Amino acid sequence: MAALTELKKKSTEITAISQVLSLMQWDQEVIMPGRAAADRASQFAVLSGLVHRLLVAPELGDILRVLQGKKLSVASRALVRVITRERDQHVKQPEEFVCEFARLTSQAQTIWQRARQRDDFALFLPYLEKIVTMSRQRTEYLGYETEPYDALLDLHEEGLRTVDVDRLFAELAPHLITMLQNLTAHAPLLPAVTWTFDRNAQIAFAEKLLATIGYDFHRGRQDPSAHPFSTSIGHDDRRVTNRYHPNSLEFIFSALHEGGHALYEQGIARRFANTHLDNGVSLGIHESQSRLWENIIGRGKPFWEYLYPELQEAFPAQFSNTALADFLTTINAVRPGPIRVEADEVSYNLHILIRFELEKGLLSGAIQARDLPALWREKYENYLGITGQTDADGVLQDIHWAHGSFGYFPTYTIGNLAAAQFWSALRRDNPDCRQALAVGDFGRLRQWLASRIYQHGAVYQPAELIRQVTGEELSSRYFLRYLDRKYIDAVPCSS
Amino acid sequence: MAALTELKKKSTEITAISQVLSLMQWDQEVIMPGRAAADRASQFAVLSGLVHRLLVAPELGDILRVLQGKKLSVASRALVRVITRERDQHVKQPEEFVCEFARLTSQAQTIWQRARQRDDFALFLPYLEKIVTMSRQRTEYLGYETEPYDALLDLHEEGLRTVDVDRLFAELAPHLITMLQNLTAHAPLLPAVTWTFDRNAQIAFAEKLLATIGYDFHRGRQDPSAHPFSTSIGHDDRRVTNRYHPNSLEFIFSALHEGGHALYEQGIARRFANTHLDNGVSLGIHESQSRLWENIIGRGKPFWEYLYPELQEAFPAQFSNTALADFLTTINAVRPGPIRVEADEVSYNLHILIRFELEKGLLSGAIQARDLPALWREKYENYLGITGQTDADGVLQDIHWAHGSFGYFPTYTIGNLAAAQFWSALRRDNPDCRQALAVGDFGRLRQWLASRIYQHGAVYQPAELIRQVTGEELSSRYFLRYLDRKYIDAVPCSS
Repeated sequence: MAALTELKKKSTEITAISQVLSLMQWDQEVIMPGRAAADRASQFAVLSGLVHRLLVAPELGDILRVLQGKKLSVASRALVRVITRERDQHVKQPEEFVCEFARLTSQAQTIWQRARQRDDFALFLPYLEKIVTMSRQRTEYLGYETEPYDALLDLHEEGLRTVDVDRLFAELAPHLITMLQNLTAHAPLLPAVTWTFDRNAQIAFAEKLLATIGYDFHRGRQDPSAHPFSTSIGHDDRRVTNRYHPNSLEFIFSALHEGGHALYEQGIARRFANTHLDNGVSLGIHESQSRLWENIIGRGKPFWEYLYPELQEAFPAQFSNTALADFLTTINAVRPGPIRVEADEVSYNLHILIRFELEKGLLSGAIQARDLPALWREKYENYLGITGQTDADGVLQDIHWAHGSFGYFPTYTIGNLAAAQFWSALRRDNPDCRQALAVGDFGRLRQWLASRIYQHGAVYQPAELIRQVTGEELSSRYFLRYLDRKYIDAVPCSS
Repeated sequence: MAALTELKKKSTEITAISQVLSLMQWDQEVIMPGRAAADRASQFAVLSGLVHRLLVAPELGDILRVLQGKKLSVASRALVRVITRERDQHVKQPEEFVCEFARLTSQAQTIWQRARQRDDFALFLPYLEKIVTMSRQRTEYLGYETEPYDALLDLHEEGLRTVDVDRLFAELAPHLITMLQNLTAHAPLLPAVTWTFDRNAQIAFAEKLLATIGYDFHRGRQDPSAHPFSTSIGHDDRRVTNRYHPNSLEFIFSALHEGGHALYEQGIARRFANTHLDNGVSLGIHESQSRLWENIIGRGKPFWEYLYPELQEAFPAQFSNTALADFLTTINAVRPGPIRVEADEVSYNLHILIRFELEKGLLSGAIQARDLPALWREKYENYLGITGQTDADGVLQDIHWAHGSFGYFPTYTIGNLAAAQFWSALRRDNPDCRQALAVGDFGRLRQWLASRIYQHGAVYQPAELIRQVTGEELSSRYFLRYLDRKYIDAVPCSS
């Protein structure tokens, strides 16, 4: 079919530019000389403009229209769906609006950085106000049924609506708040912050972890960057980064987190290579794969039964005389704090709930940007019992709003819930999974994930994939049961 | 003038994509995971195709036509000239051809690397044959008067023709062959090949050299790669690479060579930033700047009077008890060998002559790719007295043919000749240059080069620039005089 061949060609072309944009971003965060920021910004503008032009071209619209009515394979239908969706988003937003929003959020990120350093919300406020105004405008361009915020949620997680997130948090929040009050750890933990972990040993151990869980270094690499991330630069080029603080174990969980993202993308079927299907389904499904390795597997006892001797060998000064049990207690301690990215598994989703409630209010007009610091403190006190937060460690802690990414945060919670739900299905199909983990046999686990999730790339919509893998809709039940078992029944590695 | 503004906008757009192509190339040679070669090849094809489309667009032709007749500043006239030239080259080559050639040469580079490692010319041959066939097709597209090879020479060095190169080699070759017979060093040299230079110390010393001659690390970086090169990824992003053999001093001269290229580009006036004028004039002029630092300055006595103590400090085991005179004798020894990039200044241009003769034959059809290994050995024996070359150290030693860059090699000789001619002009204007070098005062030298050559970017045509700086046409005279003085009269640092 000529139209389908033509669509695949267009998809490869647009994907190639998107991959190159990922390379430029990777280079900027890992390699690029400091003075080249302005050059790189122009290059981004030019290449993003090219992607936009290719997507809105009437010719592509014609091809998609021809294919809309046709009988197609599942994969071809998915390709039509994914490209139509991306094209619609570009067609609906005027090019001047997109450019203006890009310019505004680019400036806002610089200002946000300064405001956070100086703990000065007032400095950031005028930019945030403009971003909110433009984001509300954006929802009008994109369209929605009743709730403007739905338009932005859908950008990040196809099909997700405000009512869905409301429902999930209604189930989660009371349970989590109660758990937090009962569980908060007061027992002494390992003094990791007073230890010094050699940088090269950290890098080597992170590499070993990645290789152990099955990350293919022939099809990727690990480099240091200010903030850990993973990115796809080609079907056979899925890179991860990490950071190495001298007195933190964060590098272990960052390696597993970014490794989880990368395993997902390295597992996509080769027949989708370098097309719009050569990506994870959505941010939420992606996050389910990173959190699965970081938390459910990576903080579990069986995983460390296998790997703890390696950790002891890599850092003998710290661990050779430390019992595995003490290490496990430390990395699983429940201790609510002001910072989302440092949160334990119980409090994490409450950080998201706070951002979700504030975003909804900003987008509906019920909340004004200037009132955010006060509302932030109020909610942190109510949900997490945190008081005395600075704005730097409060409302200014995340870059997402400066990016203009309203509707992004809820995907983190979707990821946590989906991870537990997938894990439950995995354990149902692999009853001896605990034993496999304890002897370092990750291959069977990965095969299950690959056949159920990885290989499909972006073929299925998020909700459809969850149904297909687990037999039901996304639910908070599995995540809550996982936490209960872990923290109340103290059953290791279970859900 | 609206058309000029429009032209500058187009120039910035096309330059941005070219810079990103340079980033992709840099990444491929320095960073990219091995398995990603096919992905990268597609990305090259797509982005090269986009550059092609932007260049051949009738709209750009209209803008250039409007400006052709107008009274313009020197710089604007140059911008019109450079873009017209580039556009013409693309208009003449069909888009599918350009994309196909980009894909082929991207794959061929990976294969060449493997073939060279395994000393297996047969592995590379099918790719080389296709590249030759497509290059011959390319000369037909580009057009030429009598000699197909002219079309490719002009691509790399505006205005250069086969007869010019024939003439220069007719002057050079007999003189060089005679010198070689008389000069070949038989005296014992420093046993550098039996020494082991620590890799990290090599990297650090190469960095010191670059910083010393004025390379700005805020606007560039140095990384290891299989084949040293320099590239421009932005006005403020001029990167160099180097390689570090454990028993070779090559890293010193590679650093100076690539540093010379990068100093040139770092010295281009900011008003030309990220346009078609933000490049060196031509490969030959570029090479004159790298060879000036690598050879004329970098193998001279005054330079090492200043830097030898630093070298002794960096590698005390090798140099603390070695006299400067012995070091100078060693780095200037005339000893023909199989490898171009390791060649002394007398034999170097004979390596180029061999490639020039083979390329001419391949392009005219007089030589078949499969016969290259035998012809290569024959010519190396005739011109340089070399026997027993492997293919890895012979016909497979350079990446250029895998790149599809026929017509490139002669620009190295242009560079050697122009370097000596520029150096003569520099010394005329700076009679105390020897003393400045001996105390490490490179600033004045660099200022002279910047004001005469660097700052102009691509404004003047190569022949025009040479006339402007030296007062005459390119000649082999200065280079031969430089060699005579150095090797026969034994005058240090002179020409």
